[in-house]
Amino acid sequence: MGSSPLASATFLLIFIFVVDVGASFIRYNTSAGIVDGKLNVHLVPHTHDDVGWLKTVDQYYTGSNNSIQGACVSNVLDSVVVALLKDPSRKFIYVEQAFFQIWWAEQSEATQQLVKGLVDSGQLEFINGGWCMHDEATVHYNDMIDQTTLGHRAIKRQFNKIPRTGWQIDPFGHSSVQGYLLGAELGFDSIFFARIDYQDRHQRRLDKSLEVIWRGSRTFGPSSQIFASAFPVHYSPPHGFNFELYDDSVLVLDDPLIDDYNVKVRVNDFINAALAQANLTRTNHIMWTMGDDFQYQYAESWFKQMDKLINYVNQDGRINALYSTPSIYTDAKYAANESWPLKTNDYFPYADYYNAYWTGYYTSRPSFKRFVRVLSGYYLAARQLEFLAGRKFSGPVTSTLGDALAIAQHHDAVSGTSKQHTTNDYAKRLAYGASQAEKVINLAIPCLTSSEEKCDSDSPSIKLSQCNLLNISYCPATEEISEGKSLIVIVYNSLGWNRTEYVKIPVNDNHLVVRDSNGQAVESQVIEMESTTITLRNFYVKAYLGELPKVAPKYWLVFEVFVPPLGWNTYFISKEAMKASNTNGHTSTISTPDDGTIEIGPGPLKVVFSSTSGQINRVVNNRTGVDLTVRQSYLWYGSSTGDEKDTQASGAYIFRPNGSLPSASLRSVTVKVVRGPIVHEVHQQFNTWISQITRIFKNKESAEFEFTVGPIPTDDKIGKEVISRLTADMVTNKTFYTDSNGRDFLKRVTNFREDWKLNVTQPIAGNYYPLNLGMYMGDEKYELSVLVDSACGGSSVQDGQLEIMLHRRILADDGRGVGEPLDEIVCVENDCEGLTTRGKFHMSINHLGNGANWRRTNGQQIYSPVLLAFTHGDEKTWKASRVTKATSMAPGYTLPPNVALITLEELDDATVLLRLAHLYEAGEDAQNSVLAAVELKKIFAGKMIKKVEEKSLSANQNKAEMKKKNWRVEGDSETGHPAALRGGPLNNSTLIVELGPMEIRTFSLTFK
Amino acid sequence: MGSSPLASATFLLIFIFVVDVGASFIRYNTSAGIVDGKLNVHLVPHTHDDVGWLKTVDQYYTGSNNSIQGACVSNVLDSVVVALLKDPSRKFIYVEQAFFQIWWAEQSEATQQLVKGLVDSGQLEFINGGWCMHDEATVHYNDMIDQTTLGHRAIKRQFNKIPRTGWQIDPFGHSSVQGYLLGAELGFDSIFFARIDYQDRHQRRLDKSLEVIWRGSRTFGPSSQIFASAFPVHYSPPHGFNFELYDDSVLVLDDPLIDDYNVKVRVNDFINAALAQANLTRTNHIMWTMGDDFQYQYAESWFKQMDKLINYVNQDGRINALYSTPSIYTDAKYAANESWPLKTNDYFPYADYYNAYWTGYYTSRPSFKRFVRVLSGYYLAARQLEFLAGRKFSGPVTSTLGDALAIAQHHDAVSGTSKQHTTNDYAKRLAYGASQAEKVINLAIPCLTSSEEKCDSDSPSIKLSQCNLLNISYCPATEEISEGKSLIVIVYNSLGWNRTEYVKIPVNDNHLVVRDSNGQAVESQVIEMESTTITLRNFYVKAYLGELPKVAPKYWLVFEVFVPPLGWNTYFISKEAMKASNTNGHTSTISTPDDGTIEIGPGPLKVVFSSTSGQINRVVNNRTGVDLTVRQSYLWYGSSTGDEKDTQASGAYIFRPNGSLPSASLRSVTVKVVRGPIVHEVHQQFNTWISQITRIFKNKESAEFEFTVGPIPTDDKIGKEVISRLTADMVTNKTFYTDSNGRDFLKRVTNFREDWKLNVTQPIAGNYYPLNLGMYMGDEKYELSVLVDSACGGSSVQDGQLEIMLHRRILADDGRGVGEPLDEIVCVENDCEGLTTRGKFHMSINHLGNGANWRRTNGQQIYSPVLLAFTHGDEKTWKASRVTKATSMAPGYTLPPNVALITLEELDDATVLLRLAHLYEAGEDAQNSVLAAVELKKIFAGKMIKKVEEKSLSANQNKAEMKKKNWRVEGDSETGHPAALRGGPLNNSTLIVELGPMEIRTFSLTFK
Repeated sequence: MGSSPLASATFLLIFIFVVDVGASFIRYNTSAGIVDGKLNVHLVPHTHDDVGWLKTVDQYYTGSNNSIQGACVSNVLDSVVVALLKDPSRKFIYVEQAFFQIWWAEQSEATQQLVKGLVDSGQLEFINGGWCMHDEATVHYNDMIDQTTLGHRAIKRQFNKIPRTGWQIDPFGHSSVQGYLLGAELGFDSIFFARIDYQDRHQRRLDKSLEVIWRGSRTFGPSSQIFASAFPVHYSPPHGFNFELYDDSVLVLDDPLIDDYNVKVRVNDFINAALAQANLTRTNHIMWTMGDDFQYQYAESWFKQMDKLINYVNQDGRINALYSTPSIYTDAKYAANESWPLKTNDYFPYADYYNAYWTGYYTSRPSFKRFVRVLSGYYLAARQLEFLAGRKFSGPVTSTLGDALAIAQHHDAVSGTSKQHTTNDYAKRLAYGASQAEKVINLAIPCLTSSEEKCDSDSPSIKLSQCNLLNISYCPATEEISEGKSLIVIVYNSLGWNRTEYVKIPVNDNHLVVRDSNGQAVESQVIEMESTTITLRNFYVKAYLGELPKVAPKYWLVFEVFVPPLGWNTYFISKEAMKASNTNGHTSTISTPDDGTIEIGPGPLKVVFSSTSGQINRVVNNRTGVDLTVRQSYLWYGSSTGDEKDTQASGAYIFRPNGSLPSASLRSVTVKVVRGPIVHEVHQQFNTWISQITRIFKNKESAEFEFTVGPIPTDDKIGKEVISRLTADMVTNKTFYTDSNGRDFLKRVTNFREDWKLNVTQPIAGNYYPLNLGMYMGDEKYELSVLVDSACGGSSVQDGQLEIMLHRRILADDGRGVGEPLDEIVCVENDCEGLTTRGKFHMSINHLGNGANWRRTNGQQIYSPVLLAFTHGDEKTWKASRVTKATSMAPGYTLPPNVALITLEELDDATVLLRLAHLYEAGEDAQNSVLAAVELKKIFAGKMIKKVEEKSLSANQNKAEMKKKNWRVEGDSETGHPAALRGGPLNNSTLIVELGPMEIRTFSLTFK
Repeated sequence: MGSSPLASATFLLIFIFVVDVGASFIRYNTSAGIVDGKLNVHLVPHTHDDVGWLKTVDQYYTGSNNSIQGACVSNVLDSVVVALLKDPSRKFIYVEQAFFQIWWAEQSEATQQLVKGLVDSGQLEFINGGWCMHDEATVHYNDMIDQTTLGHRAIKRQFNKIPRTGWQIDPFGHSSVQGYLLGAELGFDSIFFARIDYQDRHQRRLDKSLEVIWRGSRTFGPSSQIFASAFPVHYSPPHGFNFELYDDSVLVLDDPLIDDYNVKVRVNDFINAALAQANLTRTNHIMWTMGDDFQYQYAESWFKQMDKLINYVNQDGRINALYSTPSIYTDAKYAANESWPLKTNDYFPYADYYNAYWTGYYTSRPSFKRFVRVLSGYYLAARQLEFLAGRKFSGPVTSTLGDALAIAQHHDAVSGTSKQHTTNDYAKRLAYGASQAEKVINLAIPCLTSSEEKCDSDSPSIKLSQCNLLNISYCPATEEISEGKSLIVIVYNSLGWNRTEYVKIPVNDNHLVVRDSNGQAVESQVIEMESTTITLRNFYVKAYLGELPKVAPKYWLVFEVFVPPLGWNTYFISKEAMKASNTNGHTSTISTPDDGTIEIGPGPLKVVFSSTSGQINRVVNNRTGVDLTVRQSYLWYGSSTGDEKDTQASGAYIFRPNGSLPSASLRSVTVKVVRGPIVHEVHQQFNTWISQITRIFKNKESAEFEFTVGPIPTDDKIGKEVISRLTADMVTNKTFYTDSNGRDFLKRVTNFREDWKLNVTQPIAGNYYPLNLGMYMGDEKYELSVLVDSACGGSSVQDGQLEIMLHRRILADDGRGVGEPLDEIVCVENDCEGLTTRGKFHMSINHLGNGANWRRTNGQQIYSPVLLAFTHGDEKTWKASRVTKATSMAPGYTLPPNVALITLEELDDATVLLRLAHLYEAGEDAQNSVLAAVELKKIFAGKMIKKVEEKSLSANQNKAEMKKKNWRVEGDSETGHPAALRGGPLNNSTLIVELGPMEIRTFSLTFK
């Protein structure tokens, strides 16, 4: 025989086909399918391979760093393939494409052929099929779609297969968007998971309602439903049936010559366990999840036992055992024609017992969460520019960032629940991906702005830079503007709408003039750089770059920009000529008020502060007539480290406050007021480690709060979980609303669950919900809305209150595996301190019914801020040779205000992926919750569309070919529900796309 | 883009590794053979699979009971085969046939064919190849040969292969007999092991003398030498190169896209480790033992890494790495034509550091050791009878006992170093094997004694029973002799010599008459049953049988028997008719002396006791004129549980006395004297738990000591290691002699080692040696010899003293893995107590030069006691229908006194295996250390020999075809050594076999 793996492959195949007998060789009959009239135990062999957690992705794949955890995914896949080849009845499901794709690339073609055979025969089935098993609380729906698409397209390309089943077995609670959008709209028939609230599970076990039809969308109702199965215990096998190497389950010993022969005993054990589970389950089908975290490292150890169990249990004949997959199981459940309980909304929050609400991770690692969210919007913009300039096949590509973001959506990544070294690895991948996307953009802009530039050039004539540390005032390009040259700022707008925005950059000169692309001086305002930011800059720039910037900028320069949809505009900033007069530049006034009230707001919105307490006490909108008493405070929950009754600590996953809730401002808050024509600011220093700038821009009717929290002190050995709380004079009847993955808003009621009578054990932690877009509350008159810039936890613990958790620093581990306290430390050389986080949230108060418009529009703006690229040059030369302002769409065309473009990406097969999303739920807004129309021809104004195919959400099948099961639901009336409003089929000549409320439509386009 | 407060300091590193690659399948070049002129690192993939230790054999094989140890041999073999099939360069050695043969039988024919291919190609090589890796200290050479033969024949039959290499990597020290007999005489070129004394190893590393030519036999010298390689550290890989699943070695990470890429680093690590080892080793070849206990459970985890190491190390080119086996390594060493240091004698005792002498296990579990030894002799006899009656192919066979005994030779079995539950499993296997052998015998004897009986009958006309609890006086057959019937005793002699012996059976009647096969009344003596035995009987019979015998026998009946060689005699015992006179029966007199001396001995040998102290003080032989002051005492070493400096405890492996040595008889010993015509006894009660009966039989010139030790009390929380010490008035110059596996005697010198200057750290434990046959010392006049009935430790700590360790009960574990204190407990229902052990040793004092004759002859008699079978019947009827006395050899023929028949076994291929052993070393005895001749035709008197082939020791190759390497030894003179005296080639017509001193010759015979 030769040395090629092909030779070994053929040998392995021999195992399958030769029928024979050895001395005591036993051929196990494992070929059982479903047997009607018997209880069928579906054995589903699986491995749960975290895309990073205690170890990094690469460490898990290669099996390195085993001192932390003995886990090696390449062993799993290697050994599973061999085990499957041994017996065609054996089955296995694989989930995480981030791992599978590394493995696949390493295989010889011979092995790849064998694996294709296994997939074709159904022995190996890909389910879920995204790059990772994403988190469901702290991820944005765009990221969920992108990471799923990445995996699904690979599976389609390599195996021509379309995953049919959702498998979110480990995420810590389950979102509506997961159920209807990343479930039903993907084309999944079913979704499976392990983690639901312990009280919920208890009730569902009693009611046989662990398996339900889940309608996650209020808007879509039955048209977007999925069979959802919560496991009765966990995603491991029933006790005593786990067979990983070194596991101490009692094995099936069927050699009658040995003492420990136990076939009868094990068959009885199996049947007893099956009957126990059957008592919790409807129909004659139950599933055993035969696997666990990183199991099947030597797959044969499992299959050997399962072969025996199937053989002997079926010989016994009382019940039927079979190798199965969740898809086969789903088909069996469907075929049973049972009516299932209905489930709406979501499965948050998750608690695994009375003091263990997994609501801390909504905020854990807030800066990492923000990094992920910022890059999500950046990736969206970068892909647009990559497409507009034409995707290249060498050099930097945006998909590097796409890979890193896909990994970062893992339920231990963006969730903040991985070890620090793993988090560092995620961050490094993201930083590297971002650097590649930045290069793509810096090559695309020169090409787009000039017909002279070749778009496939690696060295454009202009060098652009972007400043990703702008929030701490680090931006070398803007800090030095040389005499006689202009700082040229290209502002790109990735939204499909026209946009007016405020740009704020650090500068060293308070006499700068800003001109627009027409040469008009633009109004600008200079604000003295606040000391908090300088302190942050000094420490963190050194932490990031390894060296301290020479000099700190003295000022912020703020000016208004206007950018057309999917287009750009150019601004020129130069030193003011001594004599120039009409420069429109303004210096801010600064005051430190003594007494009375302070009212700020250059436009109609006014926020009133008490100069005594230094805190907000009223919000007024002169245009709308809104006038509401609102107070804001910063407080922190002390983290429990357990008490006499229960050692449960607050930690990376779990939020368990210890009962204390000190305010950050025990005395009056130091306040500084900044005023100018564009923006008013109030700078509040609540204590030495919490500060805030409240900003009101001229043309905005909402307040922006930029908070800086940290380093959280732990000298008192107490972990702290810092919140900001808004208290309004509103009667809210315990009701508030939080978003689901940045998309739908769900009604929440304090100390209440829709699905069961809640036993309240944690009145704070048990009322926390994940925020990605924001939250709001209302009374008979007003809605008070808050939008966030990244994932965090939020609640309304008391009527009229909204609180969001901004930062957590905890000194204990909460015992859920990560094994580290959530104590983020940043070091510069030997100088270490707790992590400081800086971010923003936005508040708007609207008359009842008017809030949605603000939330949806501003939500898109926050997710997709304008993208700034800087260079230096001569204004005239630039203007002469380049397009300074343009849209890539048809002139004057914009998307309707209720539609966002959420994906525009040129794929590696030269097709272009387009996703359009209606932003409003049914009934959410009088004007906007209506059918919208988008003209594709106008979006792609300069190009000729050759072909448009509507696809499933993950673009792995044609929409028209998607099949849907017609599940029966208990209590559904004969007449059914009113049909959801959806857009009609794409008109192939007009190419006008209609979108109903909440509708997302995905298209594959080919251009001539 | 906005903030990213997460550091990416390692950011720059990433750029180094960016290589644009698609599929990353790498074909590793692992085909390197030996490269001359480079350092060759022979990677030897191996697994060390204990044939029982922490788990039972079956548990290790199946992988059950993993809570104790995650070990599964079937996984090892399954996964190794798959891994070897993947790449023809990969190699693996397998050792323990006890496991391999279970696995083989379970495989399909297709798998068996694949495995045959792997063996044929040399990818899978069997080395050592016995049933287990036998212990070397506490095993009898017959058992070593048998268990090796069992494995070697299987390998020969299944694969037509002959193992070339010894691989005793784990046994705790190495015996001379292993080196020359189970090494060179097997046909092995080399032997490898890990455990040699730490001081010895240290010196050998410095001298590059870890690898030697070992001449283990003083008699054979260079004609029986072997290349012996002691590993520089252990049998695991160099630190950091172990790759079992979950091991935390740094893996070779060769994907240039990942951060942890480390090929260069690992190559350097490899080369550095290789060079370090090369500094300890002669020639350009070093071996890396790539494996460990129960490793390769998922073999691919090792091979994957070794593939990479070989590939990259050879790419580097400084040294050469290759897949190898010990045989390939041996050939390379031989080809180097190096001169090697000479090693003689053995490698005992073994210490792994200064307080850790592994000399405790010589005695650990003394009753289990005795059980193994008793069954060894029984198995020899049973095979003879099985052959004589004709081996059957259904029903009970002796090979069941053969299998059990083979397993029991494992270096954690008979050594006493396995867990209690594993020991119980060994014992159960032995007991079952013995019950099968008993059935074979009980079928054979009726057939042999009567031409009427069919030899293949399952239900002979007479029902025989044997009594394996005779030593505690339990024998239902003898206890009840009904009126008018005789107890018929068939006495079988498995020795090749005529034999006079004393039979001692429990009876309930003191008026019994014993008649021989001629009807002559035989002299007999009745002794009142001693209370110690009755107590033991009451407890242990219930422990063994689950029920208490109804009534205890009152007497021992002792009578003399004569049995021809390989033959039997029959004795008839009946109740004495009231009037009978000449019955020759005698009742013993019993006295309890008050004062003065007590002399016992019905024949020329007299042992004199002090009636004051109750202890021996003199031995006199009136025939030979021997007269020597000898005292005997019982003492115990307190077991150390560690001290301030060192926590090392005495335990199952290690003997570390705590410094105390109390005597068992602080006051005078209770003494009872029994006299009669056949035997005199002195019963000594040393304390409540140590007693002894000293016996002198009429025609024997040695004293027999039957000791009963236990339950050793541990109320004082101190473990105790009980010895008996003989102190003679002799000047022995620190010199004494102990046997090697029951065969050669080796000279020992207290506090001295032949190979290095000993640093004495444990003056007691460091002078202990294993005994299997016995030990002796001498002065200018006398030799004092002791023979033992099973393995134990012995020493001569002081001049003129011999001590043997009889029992150990220890409350601590010695930290070598077994994880249990050596605290043997026996329970009857809830009544538990420490194990009591009962055994015998024998003492003889001879004039200088005359001891060997006694030791060799009596050694054989102790190993092969007469076998007793009992039935009841009518003496006359029996005599009329049956042969009452016969030899299976030619009438009048006996083996020469210096030759023993050590194997006579009908194999399953109808050939007969015969082994003859010369019992004397060169120069050991004036009369006996000479060439002996055996006439095969006379041994097999009733049969026609068709064919005789002389075989290697393990009967797996023809003697004539054996090849021998001609190793060069440092300092060997040109003229060489005087040739060892060996028998000439078998004369095919006379069929006379000659044997030189110590020669063992193995023949395969076919009969017509």
